[in-house]
Amino acid sequence: MLNHLFVTFGAMKFTAKQIAEILEGTVVGDENASVFTFAKIEEGHTGALSFLANPKYNAFIYDTSASIVLVNNSFIPEKPIKSTLIKVEDAYGAFAKLLEFYAQTKAKKKGIENPHFVANSAKLGEDIYLGAFAYIGERSTIGNNVKIYPNVYIGDDVTIGDNTTLFNGVRIYNECKIGSNVTIHGGSTIGADGFGFAPNAENSYDKIPQLGNVIIEDYVEVGANTAIDRATIGSTIIRKGVKLDNLIQIAHNVEIGENTVIAAQTGVAGSTKIGKNCMIGGQVGIIGHLTIGNGVKIAAQSGIGKNVKDNEVIQGSPAFGIGDYVRSYALFRKLPELAKKINDLSK
Amino acid sequence: MLNHLFVTFGAMKFTAKQIAEILEGTVVGDENASVFTFAKIEEGHTGALSFLANPKYNAFIYDTSASIVLVNNSFIPEKPIKSTLIKVEDAYGAFAKLLEFYAQTKAKKKGIENPHFVANSAKLGEDIYLGAFAYIGERSTIGNNVKIYPNVYIGDDVTIGDNTTLFNGVRIYNECKIGSNVTIHGGSTIGADGFGFAPNAENSYDKIPQLGNVIIEDYVEVGANTAIDRATIGSTIIRKGVKLDNLIQIAHNVEIGENTVIAAQTGVAGSTKIGKNCMIGGQVGIIGHLTIGNGVKIAAQSGIGKNVKDNEVIQGSPAFGIGDYVRSYALFRKLPELAKKINDLSK
Amino acid sequence: MLNHLFVTFGAMKFTAKQIAEILEGTVVGDENASVFTFAKIEEGHTGALSFLANPKYNAFIYDTSASIVLVNNSFIPEKPIKSTLIKVEDAYGAFAKLLEFYAQTKAKKKGIENPHFVANSAKLGEDIYLGAFAYIGERSTIGNNVKIYPNVYIGDDVTIGDNTTLFNGVRIYNECKIGSNVTIHGGSTIGADGFGFAPNAENSYDKIPQLGNVIIEDYVEVGANTAIDRATIGSTIIRKGVKLDNLIQIAHNVEIGENTVIAAQTGVAGSTKIGKNCMIGGQVGIIGHLTIGNGVKIAAQSGIGKNVKDNEVIQGSPAFGIGDYVRSYALFRKLPELAKKINDLSK
Repeated sequence: MLNHLFVTFGAMKFTAKQIAEILEGTVVGDENASVFTFAKIEEGHTGALSFLANPKYNAFIYDTSASIVLVNNSFIPEKPIKSTLIKVEDAYGAFAKLLEFYAQTKAKKKGIENPHFVANSAKLGEDIYLGAFAYIGERSTIGNNVKIYPNVYIGDDVTIGDNTTLFNGVRIYNECKIGSNVTIHGGSTIGADGFGFAPNAENSYDKIPQLGNVIIEDYVEVGANTAIDRATIGSTIIRKGVKLDNLIQIAHNVEIGENTVIAAQTGVAGSTKIGKNCMIGGQVGIIGHLTIGNGVKIAAQSGIGKNVKDNEVIQGSPAFGIGDYVRSYALFRKLPELAKKINDLSK
Repeated sequence: MLNHLFVTFGAMKFTAKQIAEILEGTVVGDENASVFTFAKIEEGHTGALSFLANPKYNAFIYDTSASIVLVNNSFIPEKPIKSTLIKVEDAYGAFAKLLEFYAQTKAKKKGIENPHFVANSAKLGEDIYLGAFAYIGERSTIGNNVKIYPNVYIGDDVTIGDNTTLFNGVRIYNECKIGSNVTIHGGSTIGADGFGFAPNAENSYDKIPQLGNVIIEDYVEVGANTAIDRATIGSTIIRKGVKLDNLIQIAHNVEIGENTVIAAQTGVAGSTKIGKNCMIGGQVGIIGHLTIGNGVKIAAQSGIGKNVKDNEVIQGSPAFGIGDYVRSYALFRKLPELAKKINDLSK
Repeated sequence: MLNHLFVTFGAMKFTAKQIAEILEGTVVGDENASVFTFAKIEEGHTGALSFLANPKYNAFIYDTSASIVLVNNSFIPEKPIKSTLIKVEDAYGAFAKLLEFYAQTKAKKKGIENPHFVANSAKLGEDIYLGAFAYIGERSTIGNNVKIYPNVYIGDDVTIGDNTTLFNGVRIYNECKIGSNVTIHGGSTIGADGFGFAPNAENSYDKIPQLGNVIIEDYVEVGANTAIDRATIGSTIIRKGVKLDNLIQIAHNVEIGENTVIAAQTGVAGSTKIGKNCMIGGQVGIIGHLTIGNGVKIAAQSGIGKNVKDNEVIQGSPAFGIGDYVRSYALFRKLPELAKKINDLSK
């Protein structure tokens, strides 16, 4: 039914009553209010469906022109509201579900475009999209329903699982293994050599060959222009369900545990192991050969220089407990005042 | 006349007298000194034209071998100078103008190279350059005098305004709108999905569909390997005249005001609005859902965790007033000394 | 002989005795222990060759299942070890040498794939690999044994020296010069415009034309998705033997001295000169127009705001002596305690 709703969304309108039935929610206001598109609550307009989940945005609901707003059951208005409300258990989740169904109705790329380059020894699955100027090397195997956008490069001996999408310009070096239901955004480089050099007698460096690969497990999403290096020996491993944002650096032999989320521009140096269900902010730097536990949270721009235990929440460069960091930093701001006190006392 | 000068620059020499007439400047020294190329003042050589604008570089003018140096009217030498000087209102501006005219005389790419991929429903403007292995998707519209370098990807339903240049390997996802006189450098990714995931009951994440787009207005320049994500709903907007350097991360639903300049490797998280005429240093991180005023200046490597008012100048992670930061940091360096004083006092 | 060993490695086994002879080492244990692959000591298994160089990893040698472990002559076991040992002067170097020979035995890409685009005026050397969808512009010169992977872009008037490898999606803008034995990894952008704009009377910016180029000397390695901008005038120069990691930003007119190594996500602003044999950590930011001496070491995430003398070792943002930084930061963590002491004294 939900599916049916969105197949036709855009061409026709839906009423608050219809949507409330689908979401098992309760209408407050005009059951016949109708919508044909989505909008953020602060940009709501007639015909748009919005949602309110974060109390920080409560003020917008009294002014929005959205025809319908999804709200949590717990939401109690303090003033009159023009929009029709649909109360649900989880307004954010319900809205995301509606978007998801809408997204699925968009036309999907299919078929084989020309020119492309597929090595004779490569194997292609069924129902794939292969964009123009895409390249598939020797002995590589592509699963079913895979979408390979234009200018994607897949080297030799690569495996790509079912339902995976590689957007424009993704490159997968030789021997890497990409799971099923993976999404990699444009310009990301998977499997380039790790940064390994040994100083030699001439004060220059010898390259340490990087003979391993990268393994990306199922349901991983990788952002745009991110780099994940191959292992020196063995594998750099991105476990099931990991989400990596844009412009991230993952060095050789790193392992990232299941469902860990890392924000943009963070870098993880060689051989570090990160646990499951961590949340790592943007522009964080983590040095090599560390063990980061499960459920760890790291504030943006932090620098991690030693092992971190399960469920720690840390900040700073080098990082320590976030509460302690906040207290120290508050006093850092007051250092001129503290210094003056010390000088006064010294007199 | 200026134009004429540079059409032939390289093939023949020009004298100080000729250049002074063009720039409405005054010659000090040999009017017949001649040049055929440009050089920085510290690398000046016979036949080269240099300039001196920043007093920090004054020392170089007494040693340079540049045949001609453009200087500000306000410049007063303290020692003898070998070079011929041309005094102008704004030496830097005059030099840039000469470079600009020179650059325009360089041969421009024109015409259609093969193979390329252009969908039947796409519309191409006049006098475009379309490089080999470039891709233009369904219903996309390309303006006049647009330059699309090799391996550029333009998805479906994209609009590109007149006189815009997309260098090699730029990718523009579906439905994005790029204005006129825009330049985007190689490898930048415009319109990849925003980083939006909702935690679910299985301790993993559901993807929030990213249904919006990116709008880049006129006269914007975007550096190399930068990523600008599409909005979840609505648009990520880069306003007229904005200049973004390399390797920058702009997240979903961000808006950047007119003529704001952002240096390399800075990241802006989701839904943050940045005002006009700001100057943001390199490697700055700005968290999501903030409002940064007009004319704000942010020092390199700062971290911005709360709203910033018009014309504030800030530093630190988290950032506060730059003068206060500098004072606190000076005392941070003296902490061992301060701690010793405290211990002495305690005794 | 070493070469011969690895030509057949994988197809057959080699004994400790054979390997010890090649490396001029001494066998301790079973001379007939045999191996057919490599592994890290902590992941060692039957048939694998490992090494132990860093005493930090000593504990692993007593548990590893590696059949053979290379160790330094100086290594003295404290407990019984199952593996056969081969004692050598430098276990790490010997292992790297074995990997190197193994890597060389891997099949190398050769020949010309179709379609490609090579301008009539371009010159190609002998024994090159030219991948599909690669582009070579007017008057560009490619040396012997060069490997140009698919989707590589080489603009006009570019020079590429012998034995250089450009991985997938590398782009080299017009007029840049790349030396011999250089490796550039996927997605890196060489020679995009420097970030130069002059404010004008309308509160917006005029572009300063970027007319210089990039020169990369011999034996340089550049990681993935890195950006090296062309000079405004003159050249941005990466000297012989420099190693740059992924996602690095090198601005216009920068010069980096021989054999300097820079880790991922570091940025160097315009016109800064960095000396020889420096080691620069990840996510470091260096402002423009500085001179960094030879042999300088900079800790990760540091910010460099002034010139640095030869052999300094620095940390912080802005950075100062690393020992002083560590002492100050230790006291930063204790600021709440210090503040309390001051308040107690004040009473």
